[in-house]
Amino acid sequence: MQGTAQTPSQPATAYTPTDRTVPTRSPGRASYDRESVHAILDEGYVCHLGFVRDGAPVVLPTLYGRVGERLYVHGSTGSRPLRAAGQADPGLPVCLTVTHVDALVLARSAFHHSINYRSVVVHGVARDVTDPEEKRQALDALVDHVIPGRAADSRPANRKELAATAVIRLDLGEVSAKVRAGGVNDEPEDLDLPHWAGLVPLRKGYGTPVADPGLAPGIGLPDYLAVR
Amino acid sequence: MQGTAQTPSQPATAYTPTDRTVPTRSPGRASYDRESVHAILDEGYVCHLGFVRDGAPVVLPTLYGRVGERLYVHGSTGSRPLRAAGQADPGLPVCLTVTHVDALVLARSAFHHSINYRSVVVHGVARDVTDPEEKRQALDALVDHVIPGRAADSRPANRKELAATAVIRLDLGEVSAKVRAGGVNDEPEDLDLPHWAGLVPLRKGYGTPVADPGLAPGIGLPDYLAVR
Repeated sequence: MQGTAQTPSQPATAYTPTDRTVPTRSPGRASYDRESVHAILDEGYVCHLGFVRDGAPVVLPTLYGRVGERLYVHGSTGSRPLRAAGQADPGLPVCLTVTHVDALVLARSAFHHSINYRSVVVHGVARDVTDPEEKRQALDALVDHVIPGRAADSRPANRKELAATAVIRLDLGEVSAKVRAGGVNDEPEDLDLPHWAGLVPLRKGYGTPVADPGLAPGIGLPDYLAVR
Repeated sequence: MQGTAQTPSQPATAYTPTDRTVPTRSPGRASYDRESVHAILDEGYVCHLGFVRDGAPVVLPTLYGRVGERLYVHGSTGSRPLRAAGQADPGLPVCLTVTHVDALVLARSAFHHSINYRSVVVHGVARDVTDPEEKRQALDALVDHVIPGRAADSRPANRKELAATAVIRLDLGEVSAKVRAGGVNDEPEDLDLPHWAGLVPLRKGYGTPVADPGLAPGIGLPDYLAVR
């Protein structure tokens, strides 16, 4: 099912599979390759962060950033998961998932309809970031994650803003990627059915930027936006 | 922060807020309007389904469908959450979240960077669907959710496929939408900074469909794909 054959994983280049990261379905779609995981994470804007509150699951969309083998999520110091991560010892158990939908897969049979996607699931414990230097680096990573190069072209957080912002860290340890690529998988006996079958790719990318009406005179579109 | 002013919610047109669906941050972005919730759900391809396993959260991307006030998720009868929903009484506590990213919001200050998004969070208990007619309707809804009109233009699941597929249902009861729309929110003292500010919309839609190489002769692109 993978779009490209992969060489066997080397310890230095792959995450170690665990019971939680080996899927029960389509294990052939799973990958533990570090570069593949980083690439999927770096392409996303929003992750879905899961945690447990009062015994029940909660899943919230939120921005994130990556610095090496660490993911960062930020929010108001008043937000519930960030407060919980700061209060819990050793931290807050979370599951952080990033998914890209690449194409719709239309099969002749309803059963074989699918989507081509790339996802990363990270299990771990989120910890409050208290070191000021790590916090600044994490906030830069969060801004650069949305638009690479943007952190350097904006006013950094001041003391008041830093105090109002909580940052939590999740180490990339228990991690897997899952990829569905390629074409339609119909049953041989269905191939002559009179239904169109194929892939419908989803378009991606930036639309035309819309400048803030109050923009100071003489400020043109930055290169990091013009090139896409 | 809402893009459009809303009339006060009437009981018949809105979900009742609960402790879990009233956010601690930016409560003005929350909405309980039924039509708004349905519209956000119907536009998505993939939801992120959260549940608790061995005390820890798990968040998985998966397709879904909606029939009125019920959401459906399907999968192999061997998949862990679907098995758990069938075995647990009264079902499996889940949180199902759907998010659309509409635009990147580039502020002059790093702190006010944001994204324009629309999300729906559903809390509830997922139950195994055992009624054959409801199961067939749910599977049609799952296919039509990806491409409206597609279920009628594909071979329905046969007995063997139905037996291999588990479907779980989640009622829309404890539900909220959250929307960030509009422009940049910089501090007044930052307005003259020399940084470009504005919105970068994200493009959406279908690319050019790619027919399966084995398509039977004479099958053209269906209308429901050509119009977009």
